[in-house]
Amino acid sequence: MSFRDDGAAALDWAARYLDRVGDFPVLAQVEPGDIRSRLPTSPPEQPESFADVLRDLDEIIVPGLTHWQSPRFFAYFAVSASEPGILAELLAATLNSVAFIWRTSPASTELEALTLDWASQLLGLPRDWHGHIEDTASVSTIAALAAAREATGGHVVVCSEEAHSSVERAARLLGLETRKVPVDEAFRMRAELADLTDAAAVVATVGTTSTTSVDPVPALADACAERGVWLHVDAAYAGSAWVCPELRWSEQGVDRADSVVVNAHKWLFTPMDCSLLWTRRPEALRAAFSLVPEYLRTSDEADSLSDYGPALGRRFRSLKLWAVLRCYGRTGLQSRIREAIRLAELFDGWVRDEPGWELCAPRNFSVVCFRRRASDEENEAIVDSVNASGEAFLSHTRLKGRYVIRLAVGNERTTQEDVWRAWEALREAAGVP
Amino acid sequence: MSFRDDGAAALDWAARYLDRVGDFPVLAQVEPGDIRSRLPTSPPEQPESFADVLRDLDEIIVPGLTHWQSPRFFAYFAVSASEPGILAELLAATLNSVAFIWRTSPASTELEALTLDWASQLLGLPRDWHGHIEDTASVSTIAALAAAREATGGHVVVCSEEAHSSVERAARLLGLETRKVPVDEAFRMRAELADLTDAAAVVATVGTTSTTSVDPVPALADACAERGVWLHVDAAYAGSAWVCPELRWSEQGVDRADSVVVNAHKWLFTPMDCSLLWTRRPEALRAAFSLVPEYLRTSDEADSLSDYGPALGRRFRSLKLWAVLRCYGRTGLQSRIREAIRLAELFDGWVRDEPGWELCAPRNFSVVCFRRRASDEENEAIVDSVNASGEAFLSHTRLKGRYVIRLAVGNERTTQEDVWRAWEALREAAGVP
Repeated sequence: MSFRDDGAAALDWAARYLDRVGDFPVLAQVEPGDIRSRLPTSPPEQPESFADVLRDLDEIIVPGLTHWQSPRFFAYFAVSASEPGILAELLAATLNSVAFIWRTSPASTELEALTLDWASQLLGLPRDWHGHIEDTASVSTIAALAAAREATGGHVVVCSEEAHSSVERAARLLGLETRKVPVDEAFRMRAELADLTDAAAVVATVGTTSTTSVDPVPALADACAERGVWLHVDAAYAGSAWVCPELRWSEQGVDRADSVVVNAHKWLFTPMDCSLLWTRRPEALRAAFSLVPEYLRTSDEADSLSDYGPALGRRFRSLKLWAVLRCYGRTGLQSRIREAIRLAELFDGWVRDEPGWELCAPRNFSVVCFRRRASDEENEAIVDSVNASGEAFLSHTRLKGRYVIRLAVGNERTTQEDVWRAWEALREAAGVP
Repeated sequence: MSFRDDGAAALDWAARYLDRVGDFPVLAQVEPGDIRSRLPTSPPEQPESFADVLRDLDEIIVPGLTHWQSPRFFAYFAVSASEPGILAELLAATLNSVAFIWRTSPASTELEALTLDWASQLLGLPRDWHGHIEDTASVSTIAALAAAREATGGHVVVCSEEAHSSVERAARLLGLETRKVPVDEAFRMRAELADLTDAAAVVATVGTTSTTSVDPVPALADACAERGVWLHVDAAYAGSAWVCPELRWSEQGVDRADSVVVNAHKWLFTPMDCSLLWTRRPEALRAAFSLVPEYLRTSDEADSLSDYGPALGRRFRSLKLWAVLRCYGRTGLQSRIREAIRLAELFDGWVRDEPGWELCAPRNFSVVCFRRRASDEENEAIVDSVNASGEAFLSHTRLKGRYVIRLAVGNERTTQEDVWRAWEALREAAGVP
């Protein structure tokens, strides 16, 4: 194998993929087992060429992929692996640093601290917080709740009915109960109904998964401060929006939280996986995860980021975030976030202005919740039909017991025409003449 | 930015790095804060070029790296990001699949199942086990112990004094106690002293971190079966050796375990992170992690691999493992494992044959534990001197209260000359004429 030759072929493959990613059916048009059945059941005895891998990638794997990089991927939260982010992953894999303590990778440890500081400046978070990277928001939430358990001795996690399922999963892993608080008509936690008895933590969501609703963080911060309860803010999706001053209304009170998670791999143009976790109380995370007792720590010791979460081995994830923040700059990030919001706003208007459709939740960021004024079955059929056509991929949720369609804008390649094509596909599936 | 041009520059950077990685001081020759102090304290307002990132990578980051890809990296467990693995990471980042349920990435879900099946064939594990990928062995252990807690109701984790610290960390996260069992003169758990009262799980280690000792898995499997205790085998490092039939003596009894972890990013030439977790009891992992109750599951439903561990979002990690298994083949993996063992055996002989040095543990795989017949302080000074010279990077452990030097062979670029250079550096540091 020649690294340069195979590398050139891999790079060419990547460039061609990105050039034509909008041409593929967005949702994979396969049945369970289709892909595996086309691959050999046993590994090769003798080496094969990397060219063989690329060939099978084209012929077998790509037809079985749902294309998250497609400009018409509108399901869940749309994400982007930006070009600088992709190339930085090549570099990180080449270096293969494992930063479990400072000396095993001083540069990646310090670059992680630096990029988290940069990100806190971009997002308007307190600069004296401690930041590090976990793989996913699920794991960031585990880390935060483990610290909360350690710091408070409580055994209940309080969150809204609209909180992400990862909160309940994390609580269960940690042996904590979950107490769900009802939401108001705009799907925000009703803080006045939050019972903090025996609570270790409140998880407030800024940008819920279903509707991107924003819990009343200031009121929850008051309640947590009064009761000595840890406040964790799940801003996995919407936190990236704080790079735009006009969207910082949703950041109110977050500076009073104990921890906050923002996924750079969601809306900050960074490839999976890169979940940013900040805390004002780093000693509580260390108490939960470090095997070095706090009283043995010395101030001149370099920070080991593996003391702040479940994993010991840590790859060089900050490199891609650094590359993205530099190659986009604050203005580049702002313009991309604003464009996604502009497109969602446009789509929101189309739905509102056409009879036979209705909006189902306030649009706060780049997600629109809507439905045909028809039965759940008809709405489901519309989504299934659009997804099966390959023209666009949308997901759904349930609000107030009804089936609701979600259109999430967020991929940086999405243009107005892409959103229009999704709307046309929806109208056609609904039988609109 | 032009993806093709910047990509060519990134690829050239990667190729040059790998060409000259043996020329760098292995351990970073910097003090805490050195790297960060050379970088701007704030992110840029306007976009910068990717060329600027590459320039700073060379000038600022690389001098602060400990070079895990160096052929004279002999610390901890030496690892390799192989060339096919590196290029596959470029491809995975380009695709940016997020496989939290089957439909969001059918091909990556099915390729993960397939590569784990391939790996189980290569390593001689039972083929009817369920396999999936976690980021690190720490998290694989959390997943296994969470399943054990769910399946048994026990609240104690039993492991040897030589078990990896991640076992205790995982137990603490899960609210379980850790009970440590003494080891014999070869650092193997004394199974007859293992008290399984209230035990949820026994963690047996095949290839402990300090000495690569192998716990008596068959005896522990007997005890666990008798008491209904979950047996988890931590073969994070040594499991890869099972690709060689002559090393399967260390696999005895593993087929009777409930779960086993092998890190492909340790000794299977796959870039960080790629921890392989197999279980014979997938329903117990699902019970611990899935929010879909088991009684609602249908057999025709496609497997969601996020039901088997803490993270919901899952990147396309199987692509790199697939590339490595194909480009190396069984024979290629075997020859690399055997070469590492041959080099460790050689080094072992040099130590044994030279007066003034002693071996401190049986050599099972590719790690040699040894020391100068001198004080702990002198041994520590020898290691510090070699590491500070940049010639090689070794780590240490404590055995029977004494400071012991470890030399871990495992990087695929390591040659006999590299091992010899490490030996020369050690002898020079020890003042051997």
